[in-house]
Amino acid sequence: MELVTIDDIKAAADRVRDFAVRTPLLPATWADPDRPLWIKPENLQPIGAFKIRGAFNTLARLDEPVRARGVVAYSSGNHAQAVAYAARTYGIPAYIVMPEDTPSVKVEKTRSYGAEVVLCPVGKREEYADDLVEKTGAVLVPPFDHPDVIAGQGTAGLEIAFDLPDVETVLVPVSGGGLASGVGTAIRALCPHARIYGVEPELAADATEGLAAGHRVDWPVADRNRTIADGLRSQPSDLTFAHLRKVVDGMITVTEDEIREAMRVLAYKSHLVTEPSGATAVAAYLKGAVPAGRTAAIVSGGNVNPQMLREILTA
Amino acid sequence: MELVTIDDIKAAADRVRDFAVRTPLLPATWADPDRPLWIKPENLQPIGAFKIRGAFNTLARLDEPVRARGVVAYSSGNHAQAVAYAARTYGIPAYIVMPEDTPSVKVEKTRSYGAEVVLCPVGKREEYADDLVEKTGAVLVPPFDHPDVIAGQGTAGLEIAFDLPDVETVLVPVSGGGLASGVGTAIRALCPHARIYGVEPELAADATEGLAAGHRVDWPVADRNRTIADGLRSQPSDLTFAHLRKVVDGMITVTEDEIREAMRVLAYKSHLVTEPSGATAVAAYLKGAVPAGRTAAIVSGGNVNPQMLREILTA
Repeated sequence: MELVTIDDIKAAADRVRDFAVRTPLLPATWADPDRPLWIKPENLQPIGAFKIRGAFNTLARLDEPVRARGVVAYSSGNHAQAVAYAARTYGIPAYIVMPEDTPSVKVEKTRSYGAEVVLCPVGKREEYADDLVEKTGAVLVPPFDHPDVIAGQGTAGLEIAFDLPDVETVLVPVSGGGLASGVGTAIRALCPHARIYGVEPELAADATEGLAAGHRVDWPVADRNRTIADGLRSQPSDLTFAHLRKVVDGMITVTEDEIREAMRVLAYKSHLVTEPSGATAVAAYLKGAVPAGRTAAIVSGGNVNPQMLREILTA
Repeated sequence: MELVTIDDIKAAADRVRDFAVRTPLLPATWADPDRPLWIKPENLQPIGAFKIRGAFNTLARLDEPVRARGVVAYSSGNHAQAVAYAARTYGIPAYIVMPEDTPSVKVEKTRSYGAEVVLCPVGKREEYADDLVEKTGAVLVPPFDHPDVIAGQGTAGLEIAFDLPDVETVLVPVSGGGLASGVGTAIRALCPHARIYGVEPELAADATEGLAAGHRVDWPVADRNRTIADGLRSQPSDLTFAHLRKVVDGMITVTEDEIREAMRVLAYKSHLVTEPSGATAVAAYLKGAVPAGRTAAIVSGGNVNPQMLREILTA
């Protein structure tokens, strides 16, 4: 299987530069002095998550006549918004397939970026997406299982390596594994002495179990859906799993309470609003699971609904 | 009176580069298409406010033997923390004079940056500070009334001009006027066609009234203290007022409710936690007081206490 290379990621950086925010590394003044911490705030991207990096890289790589036919994605989360936003930037149609039970606020937000939302029965997303591809000639943009998506997400790692070349530990949330695959590949190439840790909720720790076993393991979706970290309920594909095996040094799992506490620390001390998935890497830091040394944690997204944010901040 | 120049600000940028975060301009996807908005998130600086720019520039400009004696500041807010943080970075003593009624959380936070906090009776801050200067030989770092402080704060404007050279409107909160003086000077020099608006709470609109009258006006401190924007209760000095007259095109005032609403929008839609003062420029944008065109708004700080944040987000 061919894996994404550092050159792929560098090329992706040239493609996404005009569209993604060049997020800074924020020194956390509240960190343990033995483990100074920098936060990479990808919740500040347009649409509120790192996902636009992969979406823009994928769209940029399409031949213009192909791209003009539009793009299809199935997602109820940040990937949907990222593809919709990138399509609008390119002035092309976006068809986003979402299950009928998707909260209407997410449907509306995706529509607000100009996408046509196609609702489907639960469990039929991929079928509907394939149908749309056939009918419209649009191109499917998968959420993580594609080299262009992985290379795009990897540009966040390139920026960490540039801003903090002597980083010793990098913490990245893992769901489908696109972000960790890309970031890990960039860090491994540019900061060969740094350790890369993936972070999962205990309640959706399929990648942790799979990497320990040396092969992918499947967790029932009902189990994975227990975590409040709704962006971390996917599982790696063969492609991302192969990357993770190569570039991730270890996995850390965090509890639901640890995620909530990280959200409070990020809001009160670092002035960042995060979604539960976005706070997991900092949760891993806070629980003391990280060795001493200069640490970078990716805050992957900020799209939390107001009700949940208020509840967590008040707890 | 000699005013700060663009060259002073460029020199300041070289001095603060290693200490202040190079904050990005964040495109607000929720903005009115006729008035696209970029947010300059200074709440993400170490200590949570733009104030470290001026503090670091001032300390860097001192001769080493003078600086070694330490620095004095009187402030119960972000300036205190900025001076304490900058002094710790330089490994020199910081003496911060605070009124006895300062909330203990602010005292503790200032101490956490290694400063010696000297509590004084209300209204005696300057007297105590002068005393400390005499006793210790340390240098007083004023919160805004100094060219080095103004030049340091101006580096935020330099970055806006670099990132968005065709900016048409710049919104800056005004209290003592250090930030608006510096940012206005930078924008005026580098983006001569841009309009610069200062923003004040209606309840502390002394600079608005003064600029309309053509001379400084004095509002009783009890009046200014009515606003929840506790970082905007100071008044310009002769030096900052002279800058404001030269570089500010107009003033916009905002109500307390408009400030609260801007805090909610920034949290829910831009994923930024702000203090009331920090949200005023965006409040001016949201109320529709800004002409069409590319707009940059400075979010000046994020140090809101958790209780107030929860109350405002829940309203």
